[in-house]
Amino acid sequence: MYQAPIDEIAFTLKHVTGFAADLEAGLFGDLSEDLVDAIVTEAGRFTAEEIVPLARIGDQKGAVLKDGAVTTPPGWADLYRRWCEGGWNGLTGPEAFGGQGLPTLLSVAAFEMWNSGSMGFAIGPTLTVGAIEALERHATPQLQQKYLEKLVSGEWMGTMNLTEPQAGSDLNALKARAEPAGDGTYRIFGQKIFITYGEHDFTDNIVHLVLARLPDAPAGTKGISLFLVPKFFVNEDGSLGDRNDVFCASIEHKLGIHASPTCTMIYGDGKFGDTPGAVGWLIGEENRGLACMFTMMNNARLAVGMQGVGIAEAAMQKAIAYAAERRQGRAPGWSGEGMSPIIGHPDVQRMLLTMKAETQMARAITYCCAHALDRARIDEGEEAKAWQARADILTPMAKAFSTDVGVDVASLGVQVHGGMGFVEETGAAVFYRDARIAPIYEGTNGIQAIDLVARKLTLGGGEAIARFLAGLREDHKTVEAASGLGATARKLAAALDDLDAATAFLIEAVKSGDMATAQSGATPYLRLFSLVIGVAFNARAVAASGDEAQGVLVRFMAENLLCETGGLKDRVLNGAGSIEAAAERLLRL
Amino acid sequence: MYQAPIDEIAFTLKHVTGFAADLEAGLFGDLSEDLVDAIVTEAGRFTAEEIVPLARIGDQKGAVLKDGAVTTPPGWADLYRRWCEGGWNGLTGPEAFGGQGLPTLLSVAAFEMWNSGSMGFAIGPTLTVGAIEALERHATPQLQQKYLEKLVSGEWMGTMNLTEPQAGSDLNALKARAEPAGDGTYRIFGQKIFITYGEHDFTDNIVHLVLARLPDAPAGTKGISLFLVPKFFVNEDGSLGDRNDVFCASIEHKLGIHASPTCTMIYGDGKFGDTPGAVGWLIGEENRGLACMFTMMNNARLAVGMQGVGIAEAAMQKAIAYAAERRQGRAPGWSGEGMSPIIGHPDVQRMLLTMKAETQMARAITYCCAHALDRARIDEGEEAKAWQARADILTPMAKAFSTDVGVDVASLGVQVHGGMGFVEETGAAVFYRDARIAPIYEGTNGIQAIDLVARKLTLGGGEAIARFLAGLREDHKTVEAASGLGATARKLAAALDDLDAATAFLIEAVKSGDMATAQSGATPYLRLFSLVIGVAFNARAVAASGDEAQGVLVRFMAENLLCETGGLKDRVLNGAGSIEAAAERLLRL
Repeated sequence: MYQAPIDEIAFTLKHVTGFAADLEAGLFGDLSEDLVDAIVTEAGRFTAEEIVPLARIGDQKGAVLKDGAVTTPPGWADLYRRWCEGGWNGLTGPEAFGGQGLPTLLSVAAFEMWNSGSMGFAIGPTLTVGAIEALERHATPQLQQKYLEKLVSGEWMGTMNLTEPQAGSDLNALKARAEPAGDGTYRIFGQKIFITYGEHDFTDNIVHLVLARLPDAPAGTKGISLFLVPKFFVNEDGSLGDRNDVFCASIEHKLGIHASPTCTMIYGDGKFGDTPGAVGWLIGEENRGLACMFTMMNNARLAVGMQGVGIAEAAMQKAIAYAAERRQGRAPGWSGEGMSPIIGHPDVQRMLLTMKAETQMARAITYCCAHALDRARIDEGEEAKAWQARADILTPMAKAFSTDVGVDVASLGVQVHGGMGFVEETGAAVFYRDARIAPIYEGTNGIQAIDLVARKLTLGGGEAIARFLAGLREDHKTVEAASGLGATARKLAAALDDLDAATAFLIEAVKSGDMATAQSGATPYLRLFSLVIGVAFNARAVAASGDEAQGVLVRFMAENLLCETGGLKDRVLNGAGSIEAAAERLLRL
Repeated sequence: MYQAPIDEIAFTLKHVTGFAADLEAGLFGDLSEDLVDAIVTEAGRFTAEEIVPLARIGDQKGAVLKDGAVTTPPGWADLYRRWCEGGWNGLTGPEAFGGQGLPTLLSVAAFEMWNSGSMGFAIGPTLTVGAIEALERHATPQLQQKYLEKLVSGEWMGTMNLTEPQAGSDLNALKARAEPAGDGTYRIFGQKIFITYGEHDFTDNIVHLVLARLPDAPAGTKGISLFLVPKFFVNEDGSLGDRNDVFCASIEHKLGIHASPTCTMIYGDGKFGDTPGAVGWLIGEENRGLACMFTMMNNARLAVGMQGVGIAEAAMQKAIAYAAERRQGRAPGWSGEGMSPIIGHPDVQRMLLTMKAETQMARAITYCCAHALDRARIDEGEEAKAWQARADILTPMAKAFSTDVGVDVASLGVQVHGGMGFVEETGAAVFYRDARIAPIYEGTNGIQAIDLVARKLTLGGGEAIARFLAGLREDHKTVEAASGLGATARKLAAALDDLDAATAFLIEAVKSGDMATAQSGATPYLRLFSLVIGVAFNARAVAASGDEAQGVLVRFMAENLLCETGGLKDRVLNGAGSIEAAAERLLRL
């Protein structure tokens, strides 16, 4: 059974990100290390005692649509209520509206655990948090007054409505339309697909944030506006009024996260209300909807990264527990009676340690990303900009590497269980199913890699990446001075050389406009970069803290995983030609 | 929709394995290239027209157990009947019993296609083929007379009963028992789990091959005997008699291959018959059951490898078709109207080509393994032994590499489909689910890797592997002399150096009895070895045949996949220390 990885989370929070020093320096006001510890511990307890017991029924029963209403699995609405009562929904919410205003970093730690408990549960609040941020930053005071308090408390939930059948990764193709009603509101028409928790029975009202085009809006993404469309209208006194003209037409039958309803939402079909169109309120300026949405999307990318970390941690714990119990064969050096636990077999150890190491690398990257976001918010001027640039560089890796890790680790988890892993009742296969969506949504991992290469390497004229790489060389010096880390410093130095070479090559490709070459190498580059920082961040923290358990894990990372970087660099530098040639001949363009 | 990859199969059959030269030399009697082509084409047609249309209902409805009887999905029993009528079940079966006695290589090509059509369907006949082989080689003429003809025609199906709850990978722990009845038969008692097609409605009778222990048998695997236990007794005239005392107590609810019933079989529970125990007939000698079973298991490993190839091919075709249709964004160099098909994006091309290349590498390895088995059967003396040694070396790679490829490629296939890939109706996710069992059963891929390192490297005092590696150097010379293969020769030379170094290191570890080190490096070594031969076998065939399409694919393999070998070698040579240290500290031994 899942136990919150309190030690690993504390190590990462405090030592990997530098948050402990920040706290000591008073950068986060009166937030104390004790309070941080208490929050992490309590989130871990809630996950283990409340979420985990309802995870299986969530997978088995799933969300059900009948007559336009979605019923969540038995016990889930009550679970959500208890979760809100714990104050968890408002952890990072604005204090003016009842939130606790805590750092993103703490939220990220908590979301890791909610996702370990059940990804299908945690994804709902993830979207509410996004909606809160968008309203907080871009909505009028009137809209904020009407909606924020109940979104922060969790009494209502929020959604993000971007995707349409023809517009997934490419929002240029968006067709949903919005017509000014003349009274300051708009009428929204169109179909949105893949809307997570678009309809459900957790809350009385649902606050949809919807991207749509105004009449005569410019083509492409510069003609998209963002609207708030409540499921039920909200009266001046905060009570609920009539139903708005939006409904859930169908939900998807999916590979995983069965409890999370993935809805097709129809706006303005005339099913509800007297006048045609769903009534919406503009958020931010007309035609600037994408900018508002980007606020949400960047944080959503980090949030999806936490799904990867959470799933990986849970799958890894389950595999270790099984391997400690299950006996087969006799491991080298086994002197006990009969068969040894399979955890004694080096090949099984290799799998379990790979799971553990990849999980911790992803944790380090995502937490550092969250920490940079926090610092960008509380610092000022150039300092803030530098932290934001760091977060911008880390975001695509936080999303893509972590979600790839989620799939890899869940797959290894099934493997460790042997035949039992393939049997659904065991509970290993569900991680493998759930994990698979995370590399896809919120920008596919390929798009993350292209974002890293095409946008982040040239950020600030290339200054941001140069500063980032220089920081890694500093980390290396710290590691070099530490003892007990085996070949870590040597391996890291070689990997840093690979990263430098690949970075220089890709910057050159981007600058010269050779986007085919840049994009061909993007995915191997993202993995190369992530492996390096996954080791560097953890190794530096070990060197600084002397954490012995993390030290042996770092050595495993360096001596068993980091050796991939040479091949990845080779692929970045020399792979494009054969991709182009083979695509031309074999993919019939 | 799936189309049999006739060109790729023909290329692999004829040029990669050297089968064309064998045919010309008359090694396979009057078997002609025309007949081979006709068989491959017809198997492809049957798959596309008959199996594929029933694959989805097989996944959705699955096999159902009620009152001890298993009902296969609607239309499936009829599909099996038509498949048998096509003569497919007897393709490699002994001619004396109605089979066609064709080479294993042809069977492997056909099974690739059946598996592309539906892994849940193809796995049933796989087990019958195994049962036929075991009876042909080890059973008494009386048993052969009674059972073989109907197994060869497919009128009855066969099963393999090895696994028990406490005995999976380790058959030492087997508990099922067999008592001599005094009349030449035995009474079998015990429970077997994970029995594929242990009960079903395809055929009137089912022929179970069951491992069990005789009273006072030696402990461990040297005390295991093999028994034939029919579901219904067979009268002297071949008609069916009473029900034997064996039944299916439950079937598993699995991640994939839903149509294939995975049964818990109970022997000797007294449910049927007057006297206690299921009646069984000994196959081979007492206490020598494992040797008989090994005949089946080695071929079963290759057969499972074909599941990997078949799933990968089907997943790849589906992804390419989707990528050619789906439009999002504008690819570099796209000059058409609006959005380009995603197949034009280099990162998508990278995924599709990786899928195509890995599939072809696995195909080359499995077909070469089958070819070596065929040659071992038809050649004589030292020649035959050398071919058998080659097959022995190739078998663990044919199984493990191909099934890992099945999972990787299916996962990439989901990714290429984006959000649609996660929706079950699309039909991409089912490959990801089905594929996941193949790295587990018939000896986990970890066990295959250990087999390769611990048994195959020292085969014949190390002579077999030395000959094998020398052959690869010859292949390299052929490739070096060819043109149009980009950096293939250079990359292959470097990869061969990596393979040589890793091989020498592991041989030394095995010889010195350092099994922990040997086992720690086994899985990376198996992948390293497989990548090298996957490229070498295909590259040699391109060099010899001048096949241009395969040439560009080989170049992609060499320039984008082979660069992994340096890191893998490093992991073999230097990984064990950190595994041991981290396991000791973190896995609480």
